[in-house]
Amino acid sequence: MKRKLFDTIVGGILGLVLGLGWSSPTLAQGDPLPSWNDTPTKQAIVGFVARVTKPGPDFVAPAERIATFDNDGTLWVEQPMYVQLAFALDRVKAMAPLHPEWAYTEPYQSVLEGDIKALAKIDERDLVQLIMVTHAGMTTDEFSKIVTSWLGTARDQRFKRPYTELVYQPMLELLSYLRVNGFKTFIVSGGGVEFMRPWTEKVYGVPPEQVIGSSIKTKFEMRDGIPTLFRLPEVNFIDDKAGKPIGINEAIGYRPIAAFGNSDGDLEMLQWTTISSGVRFGAIVHHTDAEREYAYDRQSHFGHLDVALDAAAINRWTVIDMKKDWKVIFPFETR
Amino acid sequence: MKRKLFDTIVGGILGLVLGLGWSSPTLAQGDPLPSWNDTPTKQAIVGFVARVTKPGPDFVAPAERIATFDNDGTLWVEQPMYVQLAFALDRVKAMAPLHPEWAYTEPYQSVLEGDIKALAKIDERDLVQLIMVTHAGMTTDEFSKIVTSWLGTARDQRFKRPYTELVYQPMLELLSYLRVNGFKTFIVSGGGVEFMRPWTEKVYGVPPEQVIGSSIKTKFEMRDGIPTLFRLPEVNFIDDKAGKPIGINEAIGYRPIAAFGNSDGDLEMLQWTTISSGVRFGAIVHHTDAEREYAYDRQSHFGHLDVALDAAAINRWTVIDMKKDWKVIFPFETR
Repeated sequence: MKRKLFDTIVGGILGLVLGLGWSSPTLAQGDPLPSWNDTPTKQAIVGFVARVTKPGPDFVAPAERIATFDNDGTLWVEQPMYVQLAFALDRVKAMAPLHPEWAYTEPYQSVLEGDIKALAKIDERDLVQLIMVTHAGMTTDEFSKIVTSWLGTARDQRFKRPYTELVYQPMLELLSYLRVNGFKTFIVSGGGVEFMRPWTEKVYGVPPEQVIGSSIKTKFEMRDGIPTLFRLPEVNFIDDKAGKPIGINEAIGYRPIAAFGNSDGDLEMLQWTTISSGVRFGAIVHHTDAEREYAYDRQSHFGHLDVALDAAAINRWTVIDMKKDWKVIFPFETR
Repeated sequence: MKRKLFDTIVGGILGLVLGLGWSSPTLAQGDPLPSWNDTPTKQAIVGFVARVTKPGPDFVAPAERIATFDNDGTLWVEQPMYVQLAFALDRVKAMAPLHPEWAYTEPYQSVLEGDIKALAKIDERDLVQLIMVTHAGMTTDEFSKIVTSWLGTARDQRFKRPYTELVYQPMLELLSYLRVNGFKTFIVSGGGVEFMRPWTEKVYGVPPEQVIGSSIKTKFEMRDGIPTLFRLPEVNFIDDKAGKPIGINEAIGYRPIAAFGNSDGDLEMLQWTTISSGVRFGAIVHHTDAEREYAYDRQSHFGHLDVALDAAAINRWTVIDMKKDWKVIFPFETR
């Protein structure tokens, strides 16, 4: 009996370790951040994680190890335009046959004619209009299917790959490294929350309930006895700039101890995370590699990084130099 | 070397099992729901959990094992009034010296005079006004401290105990039982999210990011270089009735497979959860025990249960009869 019980326990434990992918930092072999060069940036990350996870004055309980990540330009490519904008433009083209008036109505006309110059100057009001027309007017389930279907076929023009492959390998390793060390990793993006959720778990290992983003209003209705959530053409919440700490507070409750961004839209999230008591970590991904990805900051329309770059120096946030700090940019380079 | 590695692994595993409180349903000894009588209700709960966790056609992956719980009247007492209303009334009294005009202005006058009859008839507009005055005008950190401090001293009139002890022991066991079986347990309450978060982890084992509730708007500001979230007297979201599936969708993304409520405010959450493909579980806590707690349903002002009780029969939701199904009501009865 005892022998049998022992076998059951050992079997159960092995199943847990092997089958459920449990891994411990103490057992992990090799470098958990192999795509990061051995620079002060990597040392700062590893040093921070060591300080808050080891017993001592800076120890943080696992429940409060919250790390937040911007998405566009921090976890995946945001040039030559936000992926969600590319989605909206493709949706306009797909929906155009039902809207003949779009042929002579802006901003649709520029979209349909592929007028890149006009599109580059698109203002926020036109952007919101494009988002509403293409993102509202269906149930949440239907929208999720549209996003998944589009991501399955759409390809980035430069890299000729699905957008979900244009994610940063070093950041994937960082997400995983933090989770292995007891962190909960959240995405906090100006992008639409329902545009991200269909794929963030598969691509980043971040489940839907840990994705915070912008949203439009929804309406609950019983339709022929079937409960539905219908997407309305009305802004509910913009999760950008000062909206990020608000979104974090609404969705998480705890204040993060680490935050990663790449643009002025992340300034307030970084302030909220780092200007507080206790050990905190703030970092900005600086796009410095025109050859392997893109190089941009203060002059860029998408991923505009100006005030937050100055604030990084003042607040001692780590600036991740993509060219110097990253051995590879994309997962497909490692295969 | 091999021996040493083996010791390290076994040590690590034992540490995991013993130190981190890991427990497996297969190793668990005894009844996980000891405060539940062995009635069809308990059998329905255990049967549902078995179906969705065992390999087979009804298996649900752990990531999608989402269970949502209403709070007032489902996890803790809501009579003779919502705890949060008791909090608001106490706050009015505490703040009254700074507001002399309240002595002759409704609804404050009734509060200060302890006019129970007038308070029982309080309408939604007055309730919102009382909530705004007592819940806004401070930072989120300050509000959290006010709530924690109040819960430390306030006592329920009938049971002479802190409100956080007036939680239902069978529901605590149910929350724990579901989590041991891989479920994520969420609170989805009409109550204020920032009123619940300071204590839900300690009392229910539900961390702040798994608490969904009503909220007021907040404003992010840098005050003398310090980032603050200031609470504004403006409704942001009412997480009740049709708001519950909306709140669930916004915060979780996944649709729950199990939902527990006790009033008409939970109708739409139960519909959204159960009227769908796959095995689902909906349950209503029916307050039938005037002796040990309270007995109320269709006529009650707080926790009004009428349409949802009829819907339970139609949709085959389990009705939990507190008198018949629960051996004990409160944790202090078991000590």
